[in-house]
Amino acid sequence: MLNTSVRSASPHPREAAVRVDGLRLLETLAGLAEFGADAQGGVSREAFSLADDAARDYLAGIARSAGLYPRVDEAGNLIVRMAAEPSGRPVLLMGSHLDSVTNGGKYDGAYGVVAALETLRSFAEQDVRTRFEPVMIAFTNEEGALFPQPFWGSMAVAGVLADAEQAVDRAGNSIRGPLARAGGDLDSIHRAAWPAGSIGAYLELHIEQGPILERRGFPIGVVDAIVGRTIFEFTVDGQQNHAGTTPMDCRSDALVAAAQIVLAVEDVSKQRRLCSVSTVGLLDVEPGLTNVVPGRCHLSVEIRDTRPEQLAKAEAALTGAAGEIGRATGTEVSVEVTMRSSPVHTDPLLSAAIEATAERLDLPTMTLSSGAGHDAQIIGAVAPIGMIFVPSANGLSHSPEEHTDDVHLMAGADVLASTAANL
Amino acid sequence: MLNTSVRSASPHPREAAVRVDGLRLLETLAGLAEFGADAQGGVSREAFSLADDAARDYLAGIARSAGLYPRVDEAGNLIVRMAAEPSGRPVLLMGSHLDSVTNGGKYDGAYGVVAALETLRSFAEQDVRTRFEPVMIAFTNEEGALFPQPFWGSMAVAGVLADAEQAVDRAGNSIRGPLARAGGDLDSIHRAAWPAGSIGAYLELHIEQGPILERRGFPIGVVDAIVGRTIFEFTVDGQQNHAGTTPMDCRSDALVAAAQIVLAVEDVSKQRRLCSVSTVGLLDVEPGLTNVVPGRCHLSVEIRDTRPEQLAKAEAALTGAAGEIGRATGTEVSVEVTMRSSPVHTDPLLSAAIEATAERLDLPTMTLSSGAGHDAQIIGAVAPIGMIFVPSANGLSHSPEEHTDDVHLMAGADVLASTAANL
Repeated sequence: MLNTSVRSASPHPREAAVRVDGLRLLETLAGLAEFGADAQGGVSREAFSLADDAARDYLAGIARSAGLYPRVDEAGNLIVRMAAEPSGRPVLLMGSHLDSVTNGGKYDGAYGVVAALETLRSFAEQDVRTRFEPVMIAFTNEEGALFPQPFWGSMAVAGVLADAEQAVDRAGNSIRGPLARAGGDLDSIHRAAWPAGSIGAYLELHIEQGPILERRGFPIGVVDAIVGRTIFEFTVDGQQNHAGTTPMDCRSDALVAAAQIVLAVEDVSKQRRLCSVSTVGLLDVEPGLTNVVPGRCHLSVEIRDTRPEQLAKAEAALTGAAGEIGRATGTEVSVEVTMRSSPVHTDPLLSAAIEATAERLDLPTMTLSSGAGHDAQIIGAVAPIGMIFVPSANGLSHSPEEHTDDVHLMAGADVLASTAANL
Repeated sequence: MLNTSVRSASPHPREAAVRVDGLRLLETLAGLAEFGADAQGGVSREAFSLADDAARDYLAGIARSAGLYPRVDEAGNLIVRMAAEPSGRPVLLMGSHLDSVTNGGKYDGAYGVVAALETLRSFAEQDVRTRFEPVMIAFTNEEGALFPQPFWGSMAVAGVLADAEQAVDRAGNSIRGPLARAGGDLDSIHRAAWPAGSIGAYLELHIEQGPILERRGFPIGVVDAIVGRTIFEFTVDGQQNHAGTTPMDCRSDALVAAAQIVLAVEDVSKQRRLCSVSTVGLLDVEPGLTNVVPGRCHLSVEIRDTRPEQLAKAEAALTGAAGEIGRATGTEVSVEVTMRSSPVHTDPLLSAAIEATAERLDLPTMTLSSGAGHDAQIIGAVAPIGMIFVPSANGLSHSPEEHTDDVHLMAGADVLASTAANL
């Protein structure tokens, strides 16, 4: 089963290059971008929205027309096989997600799904035979935009979706109805989990969402790890007071302390290099009036790195800084860790296969880590994973300005298909 | 007209001490606090609210019962005279405001009005004769809580109320109806202005709203100046980006720049002592999500001082810091001055009279400036002004926790009445 007709036609007899139909790939991506299209040229296709349902139907329809076999599992994941029944061979799962953030772009997730579908179509058209059974998957609710349970679909597949029955959207409505509308079934959601060992490997093609490939001039990135992430909530309690009548030496200004925390957070990665990135994304000021010394501030802080020990060092540094800043400013600073996710490493053999494939296609590669989370990190708990990145223009993502050049989109899909063909 | 029966009964024949009825003062204050009383023990009596109307009626009723002559002018100010018609003598205007901020306290403004009313009642009961005609005034809408035109009433009296016809509340509703309900008349509001020279002097008794008198142990403060104030809006434009995928050296983080601005604002007063106080009361972060590098921040900044040249120096320092921070962080920082009010000095002769009076009453005084704005600063444009402060417990104000001990409330009213008697 290893050698295919395509392979034998190739100049490297044992390693075939399978090229996808690039124009069809771009057309399908453009068609998908109609679902949830917004006025800014981007996409708002939140999971379990009507647009998300329609996008799932659209792709299933294309698969069916191409002689492939789509179905929706109990968690709402769209799964496309090349035959009506599983082959019994280990599966090479390929895909990503169809849902977007609100005011997101056309490529995040969607690109990896469409390329996986195109890979299956190419295999069918070119009669490519593979050791693994190639299966496309579109995981549902990777972003968690409406229902704040990101990685919902991949967690269901990995069998790690806890408390699914309690899932509600940001307004408190149960996921039950929207899930059923998408084709899922909350009561049977445990059946979405794949049996141990049934996923032989998982490959995810994705836009980088960062500037590195573009800046370094590489068309293909091979991901060695997906960062771990620790999220902190800082609360600063000072003394709310009148901004005119309270002398400077009588103040406990919560915002002055919060500003020092913002700079300490930047410091742990930028100057001290304890972790790769560190960010304060949210800072709330109470009461937030021009003439009132702020009494309380909340900060939402995150750090990321691929090395668990560095995440621990950065966490310790931030906790220590919080105490020092509280003492120095006469405020009370409390820190709560609200989320810790561990770094996930990709499979070195899969990464080597991606690199070798890209080399045969004359596509220079660089190894980099993923600063963003992906479904691959969830599937990594139950199967070896590989990830392929293509450049993001100006490093922008989660934005209508998200863009990847057509030539990069086609090249990435070729690398996915050829890697899949030769595993 | 200089010597009164009370004076001749006093140990200082030419300088009488007029004591108000302290218990009645406290009762009236407590009665007033019922109007707009909130569950926290404070007062929400925003100008032109129903509670504010009722409070005005309550005080007018007390005045009428005491044989005094209340009326409401075209701007909604409550004016109480000792006779039905003006005497023709120069007026000694005394008072403050009845309106409060939302969730304010019982004393801010109300205390000065009640003490002025009590002064008139004492004069009537004790047959005190004065060179000036004593008149009580409760200026309307000093705070600007519902209708953001603070100092509305005092500006009308001073003849500097511009664009009164355009005044609307925060929801866009005209002031016309609420003003009419309060007893005013928008079409004739110019008639609320007092003729030039008709106010011989203005005395305002007020809680300090800061901690200085309490910390230094003085029951009476004599105000030498009301600070000037400059308000700035800072806008920082950075580059919104993904917090996981954007390396630290590729960021233009608007919040990092904003944090440096917060510390620079504190620095101009606390370390560099360019002005007396400086505050960032408001900081907004866009988009304000944990996993997004902030793209834009807005800051609302204010500085205060009694010296115009120091306000100018502090303003120049802040503008310079904005440019430096923008360059250092790769962001664009713009600064707009949205308000400049000049410092206003009290009349040295009135201050001397207050000090001498307090000394005769065995009440130690200290001179201090007011960090908060008061109606006195508006009237200061058309008449000599004097201000008396009493201690605020823990320096708290604009809060249900606002408190001044009864003994201080009574002492302050005695100083007001005795000063008024002897001018």
